[in-house]
Amino acid sequence: MLASFEPFSEFRVTAQHILEYLHEQLGFSLWMVTRTEGDDWIVLQAEDHGYGVKEGDVFLWTDSFCSQMVQGKGPCVAPDAKQVPAYATAPIGQQVPIAAYIGLPLTKPDGTLFGTLCAIDPQVQPDTIKSQLPQLTLLSRLLGTVLASELKAEAETRRAERAEAEAETDALTHLYNRRGWDRLLDAEEARCHRYGHVASVLLVDLDNFKTINDEQGHDVGDLMLQNAAAALSEGTRDCDVVARLGGDEFAVLAVHCDQSMAVELKERIQDNLSKVNLHASIGMAVRNPAQSLEHASIQADKHMYACKRAKQTEPIARSSKATMSSNRRNAQFA
Amino acid sequence: MLASFEPFSEFRVTAQHILEYLHEQLGFSLWMVTRTEGDDWIVLQAEDHGYGVKEGDVFLWTDSFCSQMVQGKGPCVAPDAKQVPAYATAPIGQQVPIAAYIGLPLTKPDGTLFGTLCAIDPQVQPDTIKSQLPQLTLLSRLLGTVLASELKAEAETRRAERAEAEAETDALTHLYNRRGWDRLLDAEEARCHRYGHVASVLLVDLDNFKTINDEQGHDVGDLMLQNAAAALSEGTRDCDVVARLGGDEFAVLAVHCDQSMAVELKERIQDNLSKVNLHASIGMAVRNPAQSLEHASIQADKHMYACKRAKQTEPIARSSKATMSSNRRNAQFA
Repeated sequence: MLASFEPFSEFRVTAQHILEYLHEQLGFSLWMVTRTEGDDWIVLQAEDHGYGVKEGDVFLWTDSFCSQMVQGKGPCVAPDAKQVPAYATAPIGQQVPIAAYIGLPLTKPDGTLFGTLCAIDPQVQPDTIKSQLPQLTLLSRLLGTVLASELKAEAETRRAERAEAEAETDALTHLYNRRGWDRLLDAEEARCHRYGHVASVLLVDLDNFKTINDEQGHDVGDLMLQNAAAALSEGTRDCDVVARLGGDEFAVLAVHCDQSMAVELKERIQDNLSKVNLHASIGMAVRNPAQSLEHASIQADKHMYACKRAKQTEPIARSSKATMSSNRRNAQFA
Repeated sequence: MLASFEPFSEFRVTAQHILEYLHEQLGFSLWMVTRTEGDDWIVLQAEDHGYGVKEGDVFLWTDSFCSQMVQGKGPCVAPDAKQVPAYATAPIGQQVPIAAYIGLPLTKPDGTLFGTLCAIDPQVQPDTIKSQLPQLTLLSRLLGTVLASELKAEAETRRAERAEAEAETDALTHLYNRRGWDRLLDAEEARCHRYGHVASVLLVDLDNFKTINDEQGHDVGDLMLQNAAAALSEGTRDCDVVARLGGDEFAVLAVHCDQSMAVELKERIQDNLSKVNLHASIGMAVRNPAQSLEHASIQADKHMYACKRAKQTEPIARSSKATMSSNRRNAQFA
């Protein structure tokens, strides 16, 4: 028995139920919930029994009885509309036959007009219908309340979505942070597992960042990190994930990316970085179908440290040619 | 004229307006919106004209007509309640005189019972009141819709609040991150400016972190950062702000903290760090009433780097001293 008392799922459904109820109780050929938008008068919901008006129809607001009503130039309930000068002269009356009119404002929480709840009929209605004003007013306010709550919930959803995005974003570089990286790596792992996609992980650690940051100050360091972020973003596709895991360590999750594509990606990133005078140790690993992306991530990390150590112990091998060729060799045997 | 059509501000206000309207339209001495909570039957809103029932009163749910109604054992509208066996025998009928009853379920979006919209009167009512069922049903569902929207908005607000807190938190150490630090520094600056409070900023940069992190791996590095975070948190009061600004750099905003307290705080932090084998360069600055906390922050940063540089040049100074003394010794033996 509770089922027939369930709340309505949303504003549109609520509006439609109110219109059906009012048509059953009070007659009138057309009941509508409308919205005003500049000079447009938009039909949001219609319960039509003869006028041929439907959801989405747009009329001229200034032509309407409702625009007269909200200005206080005519009553909310007019069983014989021709007796009200503002209604008798409203242009819409020349386009369609309207002998009786009901209209109530639907307002927003700030008190401004949202639209109207209204009805028309080609026949003059009994004067007793005026006694329905309290019920009509209550229903109009209730519909406005449902609308207001729904808009509030929507605004809070938007706020939550933005905060959630922010919680996964590094404030300095606007890349994903470790929280975002962990979530997206898990999500991609599920897809790789389900569909057998190939994917690669690159871990990028800037060389000499700490020294420069300490010696030249945080402003210079921050700019380096932002330049590195830009270089990484430019080198990757929109579907890839680029994150700053912390400090001077970045990561790339390249989706649908096999060994040879990953090598190209690594070289592209290295080129982009050197254009802004940055150098990095880059570790790379392709996901092994028998293991997870997290495992690839650990392998890439180890590979990155191996590169870093190799640089530290072989300062002579730092001519660009030597680095390039040693990178290519690493990639081939990674 | 729009003012009298404004949406209701919240569920409680909506409920009260519906009860007032129903009392005016249909009479009945007592109208209520109730909630069931286990065996409790709680009055959320009451429009009372003789029974002496008020908001917050609690009755036994199983005693009520409403509990019979939601089980389908009696009708929603009973102008002569004594004619309905389930109502005639309900225990609440022995406690208060009830000749006529109206009751409708208020349900949650999942279809379960929230409570009821109900009315009682000590006099038998005319049978025609049964025709009000469609209106009563609609109003009950609309009230449930307002409740559902409000609960949804509340849930989204909670979600947003948590995400906003997360966006200001460092995932590894659970300290504030730079975003949180910036916001709280601004908020404290406003208070310092308004009330002339004293406050100090300490910037803490771990020594040798990068080397250890690179050589021993991220796991060891992460543990170091977590230990440092714990050492800082233990050294400070709950009202202070401790943040990880990035990498191995931490910051403390100590409120109501003057020069001598800041020196003590610095020593306490240094002690706590050395207990977990950590060493840091700590810069410190007290807010100058003529300048901002941000300025203190910049000063503390400079001070921290001066400490760091002094440590880096120390071994050279030490060795030069040794050289000098050995020279001196040499000189003595010359």
